[in-house]
Amino acid sequence: MELKNRYRNTESMIGHGNPSFTAAKEAGLLDLSVHNTGHGSLSLTDGREFINTCSCSYLGLDSHPDVLQGAIDVLTREKTMTMSISRLRVRLADLDALEEELTHLWRAKTVVTNSASSASAGLLPLIASGHLLPDGQKPILVFDKSAHFSMNLIKPICADETQVVTAPHNDLNFLEDLCRKHARVAYVADGFYSMGGVAIVKDLFALQDKYGLFLYFDDSHSLSIYGGAGEGYVRATMAGEVNPRTIIIGSLGKGFGTAGGAIMLGPTQHADLVGRFAGPLGWSQSLAIPAIGASVASARLHGTPELAARQKALRANVRYFDERVPTRTSGEDFPIKIIDVGPEAVAVEYSRKLMERGFYSSAVFFPIVPKGRAGLRIMLRSNISSEALRRLCDVVLELTSPGT
Amino acid sequence: MELKNRYRNTESMIGHGNPSFTAAKEAGLLDLSVHNTGHGSLSLTDGREFINTCSCSYLGLDSHPDVLQGAIDVLTREKTMTMSISRLRVRLADLDALEEELTHLWRAKTVVTNSASSASAGLLPLIASGHLLPDGQKPILVFDKSAHFSMNLIKPICADETQVVTAPHNDLNFLEDLCRKHARVAYVADGFYSMGGVAIVKDLFALQDKYGLFLYFDDSHSLSIYGGAGEGYVRATMAGEVNPRTIIIGSLGKGFGTAGGAIMLGPTQHADLVGRFAGPLGWSQSLAIPAIGASVASARLHGTPELAARQKALRANVRYFDERVPTRTSGEDFPIKIIDVGPEAVAVEYSRKLMERGFYSSAVFFPIVPKGRAGLRIMLRSNISSEALRRLCDVVLELTSPGT
Repeated sequence: MELKNRYRNTESMIGHGNPSFTAAKEAGLLDLSVHNTGHGSLSLTDGREFINTCSCSYLGLDSHPDVLQGAIDVLTREKTMTMSISRLRVRLADLDALEEELTHLWRAKTVVTNSASSASAGLLPLIASGHLLPDGQKPILVFDKSAHFSMNLIKPICADETQVVTAPHNDLNFLEDLCRKHARVAYVADGFYSMGGVAIVKDLFALQDKYGLFLYFDDSHSLSIYGGAGEGYVRATMAGEVNPRTIIIGSLGKGFGTAGGAIMLGPTQHADLVGRFAGPLGWSQSLAIPAIGASVASARLHGTPELAARQKALRANVRYFDERVPTRTSGEDFPIKIIDVGPEAVAVEYSRKLMERGFYSSAVFFPIVPKGRAGLRIMLRSNISSEALRRLCDVVLELTSPGT
Repeated sequence: MELKNRYRNTESMIGHGNPSFTAAKEAGLLDLSVHNTGHGSLSLTDGREFINTCSCSYLGLDSHPDVLQGAIDVLTREKTMTMSISRLRVRLADLDALEEELTHLWRAKTVVTNSASSASAGLLPLIASGHLLPDGQKPILVFDKSAHFSMNLIKPICADETQVVTAPHNDLNFLEDLCRKHARVAYVADGFYSMGGVAIVKDLFALQDKYGLFLYFDDSHSLSIYGGAGEGYVRATMAGEVNPRTIIIGSLGKGFGTAGGAIMLGPTQHADLVGRFAGPLGWSQSLAIPAIGASVASARLHGTPELAARQKALRANVRYFDERVPTRTSGEDFPIKIIDVGPEAVAVEYSRKLMERGFYSSAVFFPIVPKGRAGLRIMLRSNISSEALRRLCDVVLELTSPGT
């Protein structure tokens, strides 16, 4: 009998996770059908309004007039929703324009994909097989334990190419030990983690300098909100060009405000191989044309002072929240805040009460976080008003204060 | 030493495939940057025009005025590009409206996804683990040898849950043999294959009746173009409701003309499990909002006589092509035609010559088709004029006639 469930355990995921989802659904926290009111809140179909404090559109660019107009303009001009052919063969010139704009902005050869997860599904197997490493040899492939689901999902595919290991979160010694023992090590991590916390990026680049460690980052949650051109935390930390031992990917559907994903490659990396053999990237499912137009507009905004203004407004909101509500990521300057609660039922109850007071937060529980360590996830944005933010903090403190 | 490359062999794929891609690139057949001229052709940035005879938008709905207006209207009304949160938690009411419309149209509980491939990445592991089977037990999971890359990619993930087998293409005896030996068998196939040919759907449903075979179809290439409501070849073949042993998925970015994917489930199937645990479906990457608006418009068109008119025009073009150009799928009434050529270099050369005459066809070669069995892929559409189609057939015949 072959060994199964080495990389995933669906039975445990569903068996332990589904009761919490069911409780969240019963508490009115799932499957919310909404319209955008246009004045900073969403409305349910029964008319109730609430503020979404769980949107990853950290800078509000999703509703910027230029971004919306960019989508409308490309539709008006090109009069098509899709080329419906692999982007490797034929693609709208606007997609090339978008990639040129991002390549310039982020000082890295940038390839736009249908989503960040399709980028990982395409790239990670080519890293496992060694084809995206400078010497073309297979590495031992190490996933950080807290890496996002979209990367963990791909583990068994990588394991069909090479040895796959899961490392404790941000454990530099564990990694250095592997680097000493193996000629080629590749490490897969988030830049800024979706449950809060950042990668130890500087330490990782030091290991890269010393041992040639290959680094793959999904920096979805810090793209746009970090760096002078919104290049994200990891890219902003790198001096000079993206080196041939580093690949950064990220989502354009979060801070960037549109849809799709982006891959940043170094100038000597195998852009042709990526386009031809990175699975989803070669299939006929390139980004919807209005999303391309919206993305060109967002990229242009990234080159204006408006980006810095929105980043600054976001940071002010993050700092205000940190001053009022203590969390384990206080002072971190990133917008994802986790209120640790513990029991799943209590997290659901807190989230329900927050919703009663007009704020949607995510109750997060297994398999999103470990069992018995449920919490509330709150995401701050530049476009939450100070009055709303003050009220949010009031309600959170009231809920979580001992004795209430 | 553990066995590797059981389900994929990247080294062979790149080693054998890349020279053909490089030849295609040098022949000017890759990375074409285009604008839509609005009169049935595409234009390169140097002004040259050509007709794309490799678009999967078989009915031309991608450029239907209602579809384009649907995208613009939702942007104008909702003033946002993305909710940037998992659709499981909060989603635009228009996404619910779209799913209701499709559910009604296709007589199957329909869930809309970011792409057909993300649907497969989410669903196939839950089929492997048994959670989407009526009795919740793990099946032996059988992939048709010709199943699309987007499903084959997921094999190793499924193999971490259960035994995975690859079956010869459309081999009913092989399948029946497995059904006799195993209590639970699930079979993964295309409905209409991307390299031409259809699944033996009626025979498969007969096996299902006899042995309880579970069936998973990606029917991307026949959605919209087949069936009274564009429900596709597989759904059109089923009498009554989708039964609990069948799941059909498909792309909305092909005949449907917009973007994203769709999952058709039976009324008793686990829609909640799908939303919560099917990987990409639960992540914060739902379909871009303009694509939702465009899709609602396309769904409405599917309920009008315009659908039948476009299907009829497509079929007339397919029949005309079949009369003029013999292929192994002649008479099949599906729009994908493969001109078998043999050597990769000849396929590239034919495709280059076709492009000189104003028609883009795909030269297809390993790993898309087996080594040494390269060909030209031509996709017919309802909106290729009869004059253009006549010229296309003339050129193809001229190229492929012996002695030329």
